[in-house]
Amino acid sequence: MAPLASPPAADAGSGLDRVRVVLVSPSHPGNVGSVARAMKTMGLTDLVLVAPRDAEVLEHAEARALASGATDVLGRARIVPALAGALADAHFALAFTSRRRELSHGVLALRDAAAALAAEVGAHPGAHGALVFGSETYGLSNEDVDRCQAIAMIPANPDYASLNLSHAVQLAAYEVRLAFGAGQVPASASREAVDVRALDGFLDHLERAATDARFLDPASPKRFATRMRRLFTRARMEPEEVAILRGLLAALEASQRKDS
Amino acid sequence: MAPLASPPAADAGSGLDRVRVVLVSPSHPGNVGSVARAMKTMGLTDLVLVAPRDAEVLEHAEARALASGATDVLGRARIVPALAGALADAHFALAFTSRRRELSHGVLALRDAAAALAAEVGAHPGAHGALVFGSETYGLSNEDVDRCQAIAMIPANPDYASLNLSHAVQLAAYEVRLAFGAGQVPASASREAVDVRALDGFLDHLERAATDARFLDPASPKRFATRMRRLFTRARMEPEEVAILRGLLAALEASQRKDS
Repeated sequence: MAPLASPPAADAGSGLDRVRVVLVSPSHPGNVGSVARAMKTMGLTDLVLVAPRDAEVLEHAEARALASGATDVLGRARIVPALAGALADAHFALAFTSRRRELSHGVLALRDAAAALAAEVGAHPGAHGALVFGSETYGLSNEDVDRCQAIAMIPANPDYASLNLSHAVQLAAYEVRLAFGAGQVPASASREAVDVRALDGFLDHLERAATDARFLDPASPKRFATRMRRLFTRARMEPEEVAILRGLLAALEASQRKDS
Repeated sequence: MAPLASPPAADAGSGLDRVRVVLVSPSHPGNVGSVARAMKTMGLTDLVLVAPRDAEVLEHAEARALASGATDVLGRARIVPALAGALADAHFALAFTSRRRELSHGVLALRDAAAALAAEVGAHPGAHGALVFGSETYGLSNEDVDRCQAIAMIPANPDYASLNLSHAVQLAAYEVRLAFGAGQVPASASREAVDVRALDGFLDHLERAATDARFLDPASPKRFATRMRRLFTRARMEPEEVAILRGLLAALEASQRKDS
């Protein structure tokens, strides 16, 4: 997909444009590209790298390849020498960590952390937030964590919590998107379900056919009717499906008459 | 990290071992490896590939490299020729799609879809669930979607909803983990906050110092005390921090006395 000529506008007004992703000392150009893609899928576009191992990483071929349709995010990204510079205009920064630390911050599970960010940033026009991730190998230093207002931890398998950097960013960006109220999925294609009158017509037809076929237990006709109503109500049938089944019933009835 | 010798046990009893990830016609070995890693971080270990482009993909060097510590998931994965084989023992399968379809299923946002899966599978011992993803290029066919009980859509930027396959699996596995009640993060390192008596001692000290320094407005002493109590209560101070600040106050008081 070709990069968009202008920043995405569909999320305008959500506040997501005020949430920055900060990568401290990323090592792998591919990860930086994958982070850009993960961000953009969730409506985040502001990427800052702190002292990346490769100073030219934003132009690196692998970064651009893995960014896919999000090369515009790489194009707008900034590189700064220290975390302080990345957070200078931030009001609320979340430090992402995967290990317990002896620190004076409480640790919030990702979803609660995203809710806190939305409350501090999303609710205040002009406020800026940041999601801060450490290097692939070492994570964040305690000094870096101390520059953040809260610590976020992604719930994970305690036996193997080793998320790839871009996958961690994907989860964080997703939860932030939802916390900012931009988590709607498009309404499903309008589908025509039958109304109760049409459903009742079908159920009557079914019961008549079952009676004629001597399938229906005369001792408990209600049980059949009840179960069938429950099944086909739950299935929310479409008109074409009702038509097909009624056609089948009619054909079966006709062949019964022929046989008898 | 070396692969574990045995399946992870930390999530035993959660039901996550009854949720399978199915990849239909994956093209890129690296994606298959990244999917294995994403799964294992969330406690999923059952991977089935339907007609992958490369029949040897599970042994592919790139797949194994990107699986990182989850090569055991690749080692246990199965390859089947058609989706029906991957779902033969499944009670509830979620089809992941990123586009609106003219289909008779309703589309659930990911979180609701994960809750539905947990209700259908997590709550019934012995039931199996599946998360079904299409190929990187084409997604799932309508025929494949028709084999699933519900359709899940990941909320995304409407201008750019192109998630990488393994990133989509990461989000789905995360939501399933939480829906299965395995989303706890480890309690933060026990931290010693001061009790109210210690806090009050500090606040009294602070107010005394402010009075002595003629900083405190005699007309509204309560305002200072109120704001300081609010600030330092919220900060949940540790004993060492209180000790440092009281030491500073004492030093400032001593130098005041010297000056005056």
